[in-house]
Amino acid sequence: MPHAPPATLESAIAHARKIALIDSTLSVLNWDERTGMPTDGIEHRAEQMQFLTGMVHQMRTQPWYGEALQEAEASDLAKDPSSEVGCNVRKLLRDYRRDVRLPQALVEALSYATTIGQQQWQQARAANDYKPFQPSLDRIWQLKREAADTIADGRSRYDALMDEYEEGATTATLAPLFQSLGDSLQQLIGELLESQSPPSGGVLERFYDVADQSSFCRAMCQTLGFDFQRGRLDVTSHPFCTSLGPNDIRILTRYDDHHFSMGFFGALHEAGHGLYEQGLPTAAFGLPAGTAVSLGVHESQSRLWENIIGRSQGFWNYAFPLAQKQFPAALSDVSQDTFYRAINRVERSLIRVEADEVTYNLHILIRFELEQALIDQQLSTSDLPGAWNDAYQRYLGVRPSNDREGVLQDIHWSAGLIGYFPTYTLGNLIAAQLWEAAQIAVDDLHEDVARGRFEGLLRWLRTHIHQYGRRYQPHELVERATGRPLDSTPLLHGLQRKYRRVYGLDPPGS
Amino acid sequence: MPHAPPATLESAIAHARKIALIDSTLSVLNWDERTGMPTDGIEHRAEQMQFLTGMVHQMRTQPWYGEALQEAEASDLAKDPSSEVGCNVRKLLRDYRRDVRLPQALVEALSYATTIGQQQWQQARAANDYKPFQPSLDRIWQLKREAADTIADGRSRYDALMDEYEEGATTATLAPLFQSLGDSLQQLIGELLESQSPPSGGVLERFYDVADQSSFCRAMCQTLGFDFQRGRLDVTSHPFCTSLGPNDIRILTRYDDHHFSMGFFGALHEAGHGLYEQGLPTAAFGLPAGTAVSLGVHESQSRLWENIIGRSQGFWNYAFPLAQKQFPAALSDVSQDTFYRAINRVERSLIRVEADEVTYNLHILIRFELEQALIDQQLSTSDLPGAWNDAYQRYLGVRPSNDREGVLQDIHWSAGLIGYFPTYTLGNLIAAQLWEAAQIAVDDLHEDVARGRFEGLLRWLRTHIHQYGRRYQPHELVERATGRPLDSTPLLHGLQRKYRRVYGLDPPGS
Repeated sequence: MPHAPPATLESAIAHARKIALIDSTLSVLNWDERTGMPTDGIEHRAEQMQFLTGMVHQMRTQPWYGEALQEAEASDLAKDPSSEVGCNVRKLLRDYRRDVRLPQALVEALSYATTIGQQQWQQARAANDYKPFQPSLDRIWQLKREAADTIADGRSRYDALMDEYEEGATTATLAPLFQSLGDSLQQLIGELLESQSPPSGGVLERFYDVADQSSFCRAMCQTLGFDFQRGRLDVTSHPFCTSLGPNDIRILTRYDDHHFSMGFFGALHEAGHGLYEQGLPTAAFGLPAGTAVSLGVHESQSRLWENIIGRSQGFWNYAFPLAQKQFPAALSDVSQDTFYRAINRVERSLIRVEADEVTYNLHILIRFELEQALIDQQLSTSDLPGAWNDAYQRYLGVRPSNDREGVLQDIHWSAGLIGYFPTYTLGNLIAAQLWEAAQIAVDDLHEDVARGRFEGLLRWLRTHIHQYGRRYQPHELVERATGRPLDSTPLLHGLQRKYRRVYGLDPPGS
Repeated sequence: MPHAPPATLESAIAHARKIALIDSTLSVLNWDERTGMPTDGIEHRAEQMQFLTGMVHQMRTQPWYGEALQEAEASDLAKDPSSEVGCNVRKLLRDYRRDVRLPQALVEALSYATTIGQQQWQQARAANDYKPFQPSLDRIWQLKREAADTIADGRSRYDALMDEYEEGATTATLAPLFQSLGDSLQQLIGELLESQSPPSGGVLERFYDVADQSSFCRAMCQTLGFDFQRGRLDVTSHPFCTSLGPNDIRILTRYDDHHFSMGFFGALHEAGHGLYEQGLPTAAFGLPAGTAVSLGVHESQSRLWENIIGRSQGFWNYAFPLAQKQFPAALSDVSQDTFYRAINRVERSLIRVEADEVTYNLHILIRFELEQALIDQQLSTSDLPGAWNDAYQRYLGVRPSNDREGVLQDIHWSAGLIGYFPTYTLGNLIAAQLWEAAQIAVDDLHEDVARGRFEGLLRWLRTHIHQYGRRYQPHELVERATGRPLDSTPLLHGLQRKYRRVYGLDPPGS
C-alpha cells in the first residue's frame, strides 16, 4: 500500500484490519477451490492467490507499520500482554518481526506452489500414484526449508516451523511426551486386541443415504451450538474448517454411503473447530485478540466435541433414538450398546482421519518422525513412500499396499503445512485435560449431555478458552483453564478407563 | 500499488493483468455471496468487496499507468484499433480516462451500498415488502447519479451510464427503435390473444423433480458445447453467469418443481452467456482483447441459445425424447407438438424473466422508461412501486398485486446496474440478425440442430463474435458478422412468422 499514515497505534490496527480483509478473501478463494472449482480453473486461482498473498506480505512488512507497533509496545498501552490492546500490539509485532525476514518472492512462490500442489495431490490421490506428485511436493519442502532457515534464529528448522502453529512448542519438550504416550498406548492396544469380546464395526458399514447423513450431521452440529446463520456445512474431499469472516465460519466433511463414521465424526470434529471460531470476539476479527491461540488448542476443541462428547455413552443416550429415526433401515434392529461399541472399535489401521481415539496418536508420531527427517534432508521425498510404509509397520503393525492408503492420504504437505501434525496430539492431550476440569466446574454436565443440552459446556469453553483469542500463550491458557500444566495423564487414563470397559477387560460394574 | 515501473506498454499490460486478478477475485466473492453465504456474513463480505474495489480503483488510476497507455496510443503499435495490441491500448486508455474521474470514495461507497443493497433486496423480496428496502435503493440511485454526473461529459446521465454497458448506445437512437418495436409487438400480441386455438402451458406445471431438472439442464448445456472442465452450473435466486477466471465460467439458474421453463430456459440462457465467455481468447483474459464487447452482444448469445434454438421445433425433435426419458411421469402422455406449443405460449404477464419472447421486450420498455425518469429525479424511489404498476397496466394490460410481482422482481438496481436493461432488447435484436446470417453461412444448420449437433453454429459464433473480444465497436461487430447495420426487421419478422404459426393464424403449410 502506498500511503504511510502517521505511525500511530490506531493506524497500525486499521492496517491490520485491512490485512484481515485480504486474508479472509484468500480463505474464500481456498474454500471455493476445495468445494468444486472447475478443474481447469486452477492456474488462474493460483495466480489470484499468489498475487493477494504477495500483497498481504507487502502490507504486513511496511516499515511504518512495524515502527508504529514498536512505539506502542514501548508505551504504557501494551504493558499488560493479556489486555486486548497489549495482546494486539505484542502479537502483531511478533508477526511483523517474522514477516520482515521472509522475502516477498519466497512468500509468493510458496503460495503458488502450494495452490498447485494441493490440486496435484488431489489428482495423485485419485489416480493412486505418488510419483507424478513427487516433484511438486519436493519443491514445497525445499521452499519450506528456505523459509525455516530464514526465520530460525538459532532454532532448528523444525522448531521454527512448529512455532508458527503452536507458539512455544519445541521438539525437545514434545518428543519425550509423545514417545512415552506412544509407548503406553501401544501397551493398551495390545491388551485390547487380545480381548475375547471385541466390538464389531459392521453396523456402521450398512447403507446410510448421503442426503440423510447430511441432514443428521446438520441437526447434530446445530444441537451442539453451531450457528448456521453464521456458518455453513459443506462437502469436500478433505474435511476442514475455515473462517471467511467473523460471522461466516464454514465447516466441511465428506460422506460415503457405507461409512457412517467418516461423515458424522468428520462433521462433529469440524463443528468443534467451528464453535471455537464462532466463540472468538467478533469485533476483533483478524486481530490477535480475535484469533485462535494455536492449532493445538484449536484441535482440543474439535477433539472434545468429536471424541469425548461424540463417542460417549451419554451423548448417544440422546442421539441414538434420533439416529434410528433418520436411518431406520440401517439401525432399527441395532441396540444402542452395539452401536456405541461399534463407534469405539480400536483397530490397527492405515488411515489417520478414520483412526480410533487410541491408535490415532500413533499416526501422528509417525508423521512427527518423518517430518523431522524430511526437513533436514535425512530423508528425500523420493524415498518417502517406503519410509512411510516402514513406519506404519513399526508403529502400527500394518503396511499400506498402495500410495492412497499410505503417503497420499493427507493434504497437509501439499499445502505447505509442515510441523502441523504434532498439534493434533497436543489437541488430544489438551482436550482430555479440559474435559477433566469441565466435569468439576459445570453443574449437571453428564446429565445435560445425555439430554442433548450442551449450553453449559459450551459456555465454559467460551469463558475459559474462546473469549481470550491470543491473549495468553497456549500453555498458559490451558494452565489457567485447568489449574495445572499440561500433562498426558488425563488423556492416557481416560482412554484406559473407557476402552478397557468397551472391550470387557474390567470387572463388571467397575 | 506503490511501485511505479518505467512507463512502458509492457508494464501497463502487466498492471492490467493484476487488476484482472483482483476483479476476478471480486467475482468469486460475489458468486459466493449469491450461492448460500451465511446470512450474517454479509457485513464482512461488503467490507471485503469495498476494500478490493477501492484497491482496484487505485490501481486503475495510477498516473504512470495512464501515461504509459497514452504513449503507446501515440505510437505505431496501436495504430490499428482492431489488432490485439491496438484494442488493448485504446480500450484500456478509454477505461482509464473514465476511471480517473471517479473519486475513490464514491467507488468504495457504491461497492458497499450495492453489496448490502443486494442482500436487502433479497430479504425484501422474500418478505414481499418494498418499503424497508427503499432507503437502501434510494442511496444507490443517488450514488449512481453522482457517478453519472462525474463521467457525463456533456451527455445525459442516462446515456453516460448506458455507455458503460453498450459503447456507443444512446437514448436518441434506442428510444425510437424500441418504441416502434413495442408498437408492432403490441399489435402482434393482440392478434395472437384473439386466436381460437391458443396453446396451453399446463404440462409445464406438472411435477418435475428438481434433481432431475438439474441433470437434464446439465446434459443439455453440455450438448450445446458448454465445457464443464472450465465451468459449472449452480443454483441461485436470480440466474446469472460470471467469469472467475479464463477457465472458470460459472452459470446459475433456479428451479421450481412445478415450473419446468424457469429452470430449463434459465440454464440455457446462462449457458449462452457462458459459451461466449468460454469462447473469448483465454490468453487475453481481463484485457480488452479477451473481454466481451458489450452487454447487448452478450445478451444476443444467451437469447440465441435460449430462444432461437431452445424454443424451436427443431431443437425439440432432438431433445423431447430425452426429456420424456428424464421426466416420464410428467411427459410420457404429452406429444412433442403440445410441449412445443406450451413452451411458446404468449401471455400478458408480470415477471420479466418468465416472459415469452413476444412480450419480453415490453417488460424492457417499461424499465427503460422508468430508469430515465428515476435518474433525472422526475420519479422518486418512494413513488416507484405505483409508477411500476401503472406502466405494466399501460404496456401489458396487467397490474401487479404486490411488490414481489412488481418492483421487487429484479436484482439489477440493488446491484447498481442502471442503464443495463435496454441491452436485453438490444440482445434480442442482435440475436435475430445473427441467426439470419448463420442460416445462410452454416451448412446443414437446421438438420444439425434437429440432431442435437451444435458445433457448426458455435464455430460460426466463435469466428464472427467471440474471438474478437472488444476489438470492434458492438455495432461494427454486428455489421461485420451479418453484412448490415442492426435493425429490427429480423426480430420482428421472425416473431411474427413463428407465433402466427404456433397460434394457428396462418393457413396450414404456409
